[in-house]
Amino acid sequence: MPENADSRCMERAIELSLENVRAGRGGPFAAVVAKNGEIIAEAANCVTATNDPTAHAEIVAIREACHKLGYFELTGCDLYTSCEPCPMCLGAIYWARPARVFYANTAADAAAIGFDDAFIYSEIKRPLADRTIPMIPLLREKALAAFREWQAKTDKAPY
Amino acid sequence: MPENADSRCMERAIELSLENVRAGRGGPFAAVVAKNGEIIAEAANCVTATNDPTAHAEIVAIREACHKLGYFELTGCDLYTSCEPCPMCLGAIYWARPARVFYANTAADAAAIGFDDAFIYSEIKRPLADRTIPMIPLLREKALAAFREWQAKTDKAPY
Repeated sequence: MPENADSRCMERAIELSLENVRAGRGGPFAAVVAKNGEIIAEAANCVTATNDPTAHAEIVAIREACHKLGYFELTGCDLYTSCEPCPMCLGAIYWARPARVFYANTAADAAAIGFDDAFIYSEIKRPLADRTIPMIPLLREKALAAFREWQAKTDKAPY
Repeated sequence: MPENADSRCMERAIELSLENVRAGRGGPFAAVVAKNGEIIAEAANCVTATNDPTAHAEIVAIREACHKLGYFELTGCDLYTSCEPCPMCLGAIYWARPARVFYANTAADAAAIGFDDAFIYSEIKRPLADRTIPMIPLLREKALAAFREWQAKTDKAPY
């Protein structure tokens, strides 16, 4: 169950999402990362402001939090996002491995104002050959060499 | 059908993936973005080297290419990745909207050396309540305010 600290973190994310719209910096989305109820990173969507299609609030907040922690995982941290994550951000969340994710607006709410993450969710579920963006296999045999070297490497940093 | 220029771009991605393993900078993954057969951005996975769980080759290459183009979409560009994209990178690809994606190693090849994107793909398909990382709704009514402001805003930059 969400506690007071969770509500405070989410309220901060919502505040940032409002500020972002008012400042004209980007879409109505923001996120914060907290550890033990204390915010360690916060971010708002800055796709158009930075010409970076990956600069969704969750991605920017995860990158910032990991930078502060000096580690590539968010062990024991919680993510508070003002909207249910898109597939890109959900993927990033799974790689970052926070303990819990809180979200406010739903994907349906986002679709209702023109952000149709549902399209990407449906594409991800389709076989590669049926996707809207063509995905074409090329030179697999050559590329396997790097995988073999990785597997044989004894001093690698797994992740 | 892939042409010679496509093979050259993929060969460069494969070369970068090998260099990345040998230099110990990160996993055996690399990607390049090309426009009209000319490479405009290239990157290798640097998750562990930069403590950034989002620093997959495709994400870094997309960010770099958009930075160079000064735009948040990869209109008319092609992406060449040494391995089939994980869900995070596939999401980023859909937001960046390149014309085509070429991949070499498959998701099954990646799973065979310990990178199990398949787990994330299966999680994405599950209802929120059934996912391994808990996803908890919180303060939706408050967050909707930012969506309403976005909808009412007349001078926004849509994306």
